Amino acid sequence: MRMIDSRTGIEVMDRAECLALLETQQVGRLAVVDDGRPMIFPVNYAIDGGEVVFRTAEGSKFDSAARRGPVAFEVDVTDDQSRSGWSVVVNGRAELITSEPELERVRSLPLDPWSAHEKSNWIRVRPDTITGRRVVPQG
Amino acid sequence: MRMIDSRTGIEVMDRAECLALLETQQVGRLAVVDDGRPMIFPVNYAIDGGEVVFRTAEGSKFDSAARRGPVAFEVDVTDDQSRSGWSVVVNGRAELITSEPELERVRSLPLDPWSAHEKSNWIRVRPDTITGRRVVPQG
Repeated sequence: MRMIDSRTGIEVMDRAECLALLETQQVGRLAVVDDGRPMIFPVNYAIDGGEVVFRTAEGSKFDSAARRGPVAFEVDVTDDQSRSGWSVVVNGRAELITSEPELERVRSLPLDPWSAHEKSNWIRVRPDTITGRRVVPQG
Repeated sequence: MRMIDSRTGIEVMDRAECLALLETQQVGRLAVVDDGRPMIFPVNYAIDGGEVVFRTAEGSKFDSAARRGPVAFEVDVTDDQSRSGWSVVVNGRAELITSEPELERVRSLPLDPWSAHEKSNWIRVRPDTITGRRVVPQG
């Protein structure tokens, strides 16, 4: 069953569809709150057990921001020509991965940072909500 | 002169290059703080006088969130194959556009929301900072 948001005309996707779409992409954006202000970082990510996993550089501003407080993580694919696309947002809390068995598993994920800098910390987003919307081409 | 971030190996772009790149795209993501938590929304935008302009639906959660407090607005283009791309972030404050001459001007911008819902409010982001980074393909 397709759910359409009656206010916006936008299709609302269920959690399973959102997760399936998250698996198709490699780059998302993490939003965090720093001293009451929003910050946003593009990030290479992978999905592990239905959760978003990414790497940060120890001691970087991104690392410290990502490791405290609530986060929002967004992925989208849009097409300017057909003016359509989808967006998935994960709201939750980021945690540093410290358990060795878990580290061993996530190190095998298809996730290599694009920049040359060493990113030694692995972060997991524990989702509270996963929501997604799709805009279909207007007829 | 190209500036390279010595910690990350990422190229740091100046404000003029960031603005030029913002002009090339149509979709970005707005991050706001709601009750201490980050929220993130994909948004169709245009550039007007070096500032980000977009439309919101009166009374929507996005509208109320975007109209108070600091915002971060992000645009990126990435290429999974070459593992390269750029990202620009505007940090600033969003304002509802209310002046009639200004509304007349922004209504002529190439900016039509993709969903059918009426979005009657025009919002402008007054930038405090515009920063950008580029990851070039690794040799």
